[in-house]
Formats: sequence, C-alpha cells, structure tokens
Amino acid sequence: MYAVIFTSKQSEHTSGYAEMSQKMEDLAKEQKGFLGIESAREGIGITVSYWETLENINNWKANTKHLIAQRTGREQWYDWYRVRICKVEREYEFLLT
Amino acid sequence: MYAVIFTSKQSEHTSGYAEMSQKMEDLAKEQKGFLGIESAREGIGITVSYWETLENINNWKANTKHLIAQRTGREQWYDWYRVRICKVEREYEFLLT
Repeated sequence: MYAVIFTSKQSEHTSGYAEMSQKMEDLAKEQKGFLGIESAREGIGITVSYWETLENINNWKANTKHLIAQRTGREQWYDWYRVRICKVEREYEFLLT
Repeated sequence: MYAVIFTSKQSEHTSGYAEMSQKMEDLAKEQKGFLGIESAREGIGITVSYWETLENINNWKANTKHLIAQRTGREQWYDWYRVRICKVEREYEFLLT
C-alpha cells in the first residue's frame, strides 16, 4: 500500500475551493487502486490518500479533471503545497473496546 | 526519510490532552533523527512526523515519557488511533512566487 501525504496552506482566494475539493475526493474514490482518504485542516491542511500501487497514484495525478484542479490550486487556492509519495511499511491501530 | 502518519479520533475525555500533546511534540523535536512534524485536527486528527531512519522511529516509540503518553492516550484520550510507518519515496512542492 502507498500513501500520498498532501500538506497545504490555503491562500486568501478560496472561492470555489470547497466545491472542487469535494468533487476531487469523490472522483478519487472512483479511481483504480483507491483505498481510502483522510483529511483535516487547522492552520494547514493535511490530506492523506491511500493507493494499491505507484501506478495508481501516477494515473490519478494525470487524470484530466484532476489536472485542472491542480492548476487552479496553484493559480488561486494555495500559497504552498507539498506532496510526499510513501510506501507504507507497517501499520497498527488501537480501538477502544 | 520516513514518515509516521498518526490518525486519531479523540474521546470525550480530553482533560490534560493539549498539554501532553505539546510536551510530546517538544520532546519529539529533541530526538535523534527527527526531521519535522505537521498536525491538523478537524473531526479526526492527523499528525505526520518525519524521521531519518526506522531505528529513530522505534527509539521514539520506546521513549519512556512517550510510553506514558501513549498509555494515557489509550486509557483516556482516544476512541481510536492508527499509526502507519512509511518510507518517503519521492516528494515535490509548490511555492507561490
């Protein structure tokens, strides 16, 4: 499993952002190899999406609708963002019983 | 570089959490191999910390003061949490110019 850690700082020009963000999340969920997504924004935004393979991630990055969103992000919505592509080596969890 | 993705859902018993969270972040920053940390909470919490090696991560996990915080987390502060240890394969960034 692979994780894409997307951290970002929004600009002051957030018009249209929430709608596009929801659209992209919905579209990501339809992509081959998509496993899950988690987001939180508090000062900075952190979104982590999980994928079966690196090819799945590359295909999602190159998706036409996603490319338009990425461009608008750079032109309007973000002061900065960072993308880190990671291989998940191990994981564990705690669940209250 | 390695990333530790820590996602969590707080319980209703958050007494002492904010103080301990800040203490642990300060303590993490003093550890060998620590490279950075990013956090946001909005519904769920996502904290990503970055480390030079897996050994650095294991040492931090086994740190005595951190073990106490982890135990209190399970007993009191969290309904659930997940930890994913990842190898960062590549990264890129956008900065508004």
